[in-house]
Amino acid sequence: MQERIDRQIDFILEIDRIKQIVRQNYLADGSRRENDAEHSWHLALMAMLLTEHAVDQELNRLKTIEMVLIHDLVEIYAGDTYCYDEAGRSSQTERERAAAARLFAILPEDQEARFTALWEEFEAMETPEARFAGALDRFQPMLLNFTSGAASWREHTISEKQVIDRNRAPLQQIPALWKRADEMIRTAVARGDLIPTEKPEK
Amino acid sequence: MQERIDRQIDFILEIDRIKQIVRQNYLADGSRRENDAEHSWHLALMAMLLTEHAVDQELNRLKTIEMVLIHDLVEIYAGDTYCYDEAGRSSQTERERAAAARLFAILPEDQEARFTALWEEFEAMETPEARFAGALDRFQPMLLNFTSGAASWREHTISEKQVIDRNRAPLQQIPALWKRADEMIRTAVARGDLIPTEKPEK
Repeated sequence: MQERIDRQIDFILEIDRIKQIVRQNYLADGSRRENDAEHSWHLALMAMLLTEHAVDQELNRLKTIEMVLIHDLVEIYAGDTYCYDEAGRSSQTERERAAAARLFAILPEDQEARFTALWEEFEAMETPEARFAGALDRFQPMLLNFTSGAASWREHTISEKQVIDRNRAPLQQIPALWKRADEMIRTAVARGDLIPTEKPEK
Repeated sequence: MQERIDRQIDFILEIDRIKQIVRQNYLADGSRRENDAEHSWHLALMAMLLTEHAVDQELNRLKTIEMVLIHDLVEIYAGDTYCYDEAGRSSQTERERAAAARLFAILPEDQEARFTALWEEFEAMETPEARFAGALDRFQPMLLNFTSGAASWREHTISEKQVIDRNRAPLQQIPALWKRADEMIRTAVARGDLIPTEKPEK
């Protein structure tokens, strides 16, 4: 028993490092960038409140919450990859898979298997819980970024088309959130925070 | 339906402020103090891993995780009260009860009732889930503080007796954690990080 609790506490201390993984988006008040621990906590709270809006009604809330709590742990070793960084994203899967293997190996074997399976389920985006978690993971930074004045979109000169291409399909898992996201995108374009998509001539 | 999602999103934005509530304890590497969002995320991860060590075997993991995710939300309005600040703690219950009423009222009524009940269950410390959550809430800052070099104990000149009096009973809900806590306290006294308790003459 002693070795088991030691491995669990070693893991608990190692994951403290996620509090230092800084993301591109700012807090809602724009005072500073958010970190991965804060982001994961926020997604878990959203999962507590929003499962009623899912397209898939048979959602397991425990699984969804646990999935968002661990979904970014791999970034402790693999770093945060900005969602509009195409070069970084091409090597992301391999880097994150190696990070997951290294990190979850700290745990007792049964929990290593459980965490690995949960993370892989999130990555595969096939089950209702993974698709719901994925939608929250798109909406939350957009909501904070929009509220804080869209600094991360402006810093990286992001276009309306990039935001729609990246978020429309995942967010349609939660139609109430896609509706709100669509409103935010239109407002951001009107404010000059996103480069507008040229409309085809009629 | 639209009003319901609007209230939920208002709540999701309001609780972003918990990321600015700074606690006394430092991160494990000592680089800066922790905030309440990070602390709550860390407790939820611990709940995912450690329920097998609970004295009460019938623990509901979903309830435990949801409880730790929301347990400090009241501090958005009531502020963080350092656990060894006796003056602050005397007004704490009243301040936090008012904060809970104000914050949870942002939610749709059924979710307001659910969050209020969950927070009150945590505060009452009577159910297995609340006692387990309470034990995690004592152990996590102690683990980070000890690992970072006990800065928050040294800054406030805390004694071995204060730490034992505050933590022994709650931590006995998870004997494996109390065993580790007891070792940390002894080591901290030996290192000069806690004022030792005078031993009675034999």
